[in-house]
Amino acid sequence: MSIVSHSSTIDELRQALGDKVSVNQTMREHHSKDESFHLATLPDAVVYATCTEDVATTLKICNKNRTPVVAFGAGTSLEGNSTPIYGGVSLDVSQMDKVLRISQEDLDCTLQPGVRRKQLNEILATHGLFFPVDPGADATLGGMAATGASGTTTVKYGAMKQLVMSLTVVTPNGEVITTSRRARKTSAGYDLTHLFVGSEGTLGVITELNLRVFGIPEVIAAATMQFPSLRSAVDGVIEVIQYGIGVARIELLDSDAVSAVNKYSDTNLPEQTLLLMEFHGSAESTAIDIAATREVLERHGGSGFVQTTDEAERRKLWQARHDTSLACRSLVKNAKNFATDVCVPISRLSDCIEETQADLVASQLFGPIIGHVGDGNFHVVLSVDPEDHPMVERMEQFHSRLVERALAMEGTCTGEHGIGMGKIDYLVDELGNEAVGVMATIKKALDPNGIMNPGKIIAGTFF
Amino acid sequence: MSIVSHSSTIDELRQALGDKVSVNQTMREHHSKDESFHLATLPDAVVYATCTEDVATTLKICNKNRTPVVAFGAGTSLEGNSTPIYGGVSLDVSQMDKVLRISQEDLDCTLQPGVRRKQLNEILATHGLFFPVDPGADATLGGMAATGASGTTTVKYGAMKQLVMSLTVVTPNGEVITTSRRARKTSAGYDLTHLFVGSEGTLGVITELNLRVFGIPEVIAAATMQFPSLRSAVDGVIEVIQYGIGVARIELLDSDAVSAVNKYSDTNLPEQTLLLMEFHGSAESTAIDIAATREVLERHGGSGFVQTTDEAERRKLWQARHDTSLACRSLVKNAKNFATDVCVPISRLSDCIEETQADLVASQLFGPIIGHVGDGNFHVVLSVDPEDHPMVERMEQFHSRLVERALAMEGTCTGEHGIGMGKIDYLVDELGNEAVGVMATIKKALDPNGIMNPGKIIAGTFF
Repeated sequence: MSIVSHSSTIDELRQALGDKVSVNQTMREHHSKDESFHLATLPDAVVYATCTEDVATTLKICNKNRTPVVAFGAGTSLEGNSTPIYGGVSLDVSQMDKVLRISQEDLDCTLQPGVRRKQLNEILATHGLFFPVDPGADATLGGMAATGASGTTTVKYGAMKQLVMSLTVVTPNGEVITTSRRARKTSAGYDLTHLFVGSEGTLGVITELNLRVFGIPEVIAAATMQFPSLRSAVDGVIEVIQYGIGVARIELLDSDAVSAVNKYSDTNLPEQTLLLMEFHGSAESTAIDIAATREVLERHGGSGFVQTTDEAERRKLWQARHDTSLACRSLVKNAKNFATDVCVPISRLSDCIEETQADLVASQLFGPIIGHVGDGNFHVVLSVDPEDHPMVERMEQFHSRLVERALAMEGTCTGEHGIGMGKIDYLVDELGNEAVGVMATIKKALDPNGIMNPGKIIAGTFF
Repeated sequence: MSIVSHSSTIDELRQALGDKVSVNQTMREHHSKDESFHLATLPDAVVYATCTEDVATTLKICNKNRTPVVAFGAGTSLEGNSTPIYGGVSLDVSQMDKVLRISQEDLDCTLQPGVRRKQLNEILATHGLFFPVDPGADATLGGMAATGASGTTTVKYGAMKQLVMSLTVVTPNGEVITTSRRARKTSAGYDLTHLFVGSEGTLGVITELNLRVFGIPEVIAAATMQFPSLRSAVDGVIEVIQYGIGVARIELLDSDAVSAVNKYSDTNLPEQTLLLMEFHGSAESTAIDIAATREVLERHGGSGFVQTTDEAERRKLWQARHDTSLACRSLVKNAKNFATDVCVPISRLSDCIEETQADLVASQLFGPIIGHVGDGNFHVVLSVDPEDHPMVERMEQFHSRLVERALAMEGTCTGEHGIGMGKIDYLVDELGNEAVGVMATIKKALDPNGIMNPGKIIAGTFF
């Protein structure tokens, strides 16, 4: 629901962009929400941009009329990041879905923001290349950059922060800037690339990305191992990382998560604390990495080592991991997922998870835990019926305590989902009024009319 | 020379900070320049800060009085980055030189900005750890972060941009902010860490850094190989990187550079295009990496493979590489070094270097070339007598053409030295008025009185 009328904006957009502007109810509903628990809100109109100029035209008109603009990709975000809470225009870039250039020599690619992760990797594969960031969902790359996403391979390859080399961005006044050259490194001026990565559409709209890519490894081997306790698994992972052993993925599932996965995905994994791993390299180097990892983990009590290089088996394993939230949701009637996303220094990860598990029991909540353990990031997959108000309240209180716990351990409220509308209050708890004040100063300077995704990241940004 | 009088500022600083404020001529001269060709300019006073509060006190007083403040570490920058061109206060943080915390489990360390690179690595070594960024000079870590420095190991470990996890910064109004928590990753709000990395003291003063560190590898092996041509060496490196072979350093020297190094450092390297390499890992993994690298490079015409794991030999080799600029300077009477720093996509590196070599000949300039070839970054080490005005003019024209050439190849004017006062005009050529306009908007919003290192990065920033 919009708090102001934007009919003249819509008229002007129609004159400039014709059929690309829609006020169809179904279209507006599709753009009213993401995959999160947060309330849906309708935009007044949807603009389907097909090029950077469409985006610039939209922003110029909206800026003049002070109409909110929220960029929209695949709608897979988890904190209401793309929900138009003040109405206005949902600027859909999903039709800007071309990969514009791939360079095998420079190991980079240039693409439009609506390209999705799986589509990108299918195209890159024909060149022997891949893009590693894997948040699970088949998100758009523009959305992944705007959210500062990461995922299961971040322990080896880094997050979007590390792999976005340059962005073309339309600023709120409709100017088009490119944040960096295509050279692998630069120290030329302020790092605008990183300012826009993770800015969740509050400073401008990304219309082109240049990303680092990697050669597809000769060998990709997956492996699993079970542990007598959470702490033994985490201690093992800490040591693997200390030794610099090349793990490409190292994911933790607690026994509840394994049990949910087994039921949902027809897998037969041991229902204990489990590590799912992947190794990338040559036949020789992966053999060395696997042997070293196994040795370290067995010393920490790991057992039942199983390994596969079969692609179908490997894909099934990771699909099962990615389907954890669906698996958990299927266990509770009318459930929606509420994803927590704290990340702590790895030395505190066992403490944080153990205290959280005890809190789950005390709170009478069912919350399997999955973790990007190499990064210290874990999710409690809470499945709650939104109509069950006592349970929703218990969940919200549990979540507040979880964030407090993570912050007390020098952690963050969000490792990879962003602040969106769901974690605005925690941002101040995490970084303090002064640091958030610096963010607000930047926001106000670059978007003086407050049109870009108002109400996200920083409170009170609908001026 | 200051353009305004700052005597009342100095009085106030003395009242607040006592003996930490100096107007001694020798001290002021020491803070008037860096290691570059650029003209020296005296600050009106030097403040020796010993803690974050001293920095905050200094900024508050200077901001009130609109007195310029330029942070100063080791003075090893190469673009006049720390030269107080409008006078005011040189804020020396070199006495803030404590390592505050080292975590083996989290592989990070927290330190004050005046800690120098070699000092840090001596301390880290007692914990079995090291910090890889190696720009050659024994710079302070605060200066390296502010400059966005990188160096010979960036091909494997990344630049300061990748390895600074969080910063404590004093903003121009004297507020103290910490840009991020100590968790390994976060997507909480705007990436202030990266905004300050590379901002060259124009937005605030860094008073604490949290850095990623790594375990010292079991084996460190250095190797050299010579090539019949520059292009054959670069093509070989491109293939090594495409295959994802783990090289920790891969540095190119042209024959002029090798010859200068041999004379200066008493080495006996073959005076041809040369690659200097280093491999980090276990005994097994480095053996695999070395064999794979050698095979690829031999296929591209590389020969004379020599390898050593002896620490003294290895150190001598890298010291010789780092002394290239001294070596070149020693060949020209009364010479000063003028360092170029372009960086291009690696696919264009051979073209860029070959055209540059031809231009050197046409310009009657002596300029050995050394390159961080894995990153596409190279330096022409120009040694010029500043009193030889015709040569200085030829050098300046050559440098303009070099930057134009790099920009035409999608490169940057500076891979690692920063913009400082030397490359301000090129920044606009590189990124355009609109992108530099966004930088200027941020600068003006965060430093409305323009006190922070005025005249650097963005033209006209002494408001």
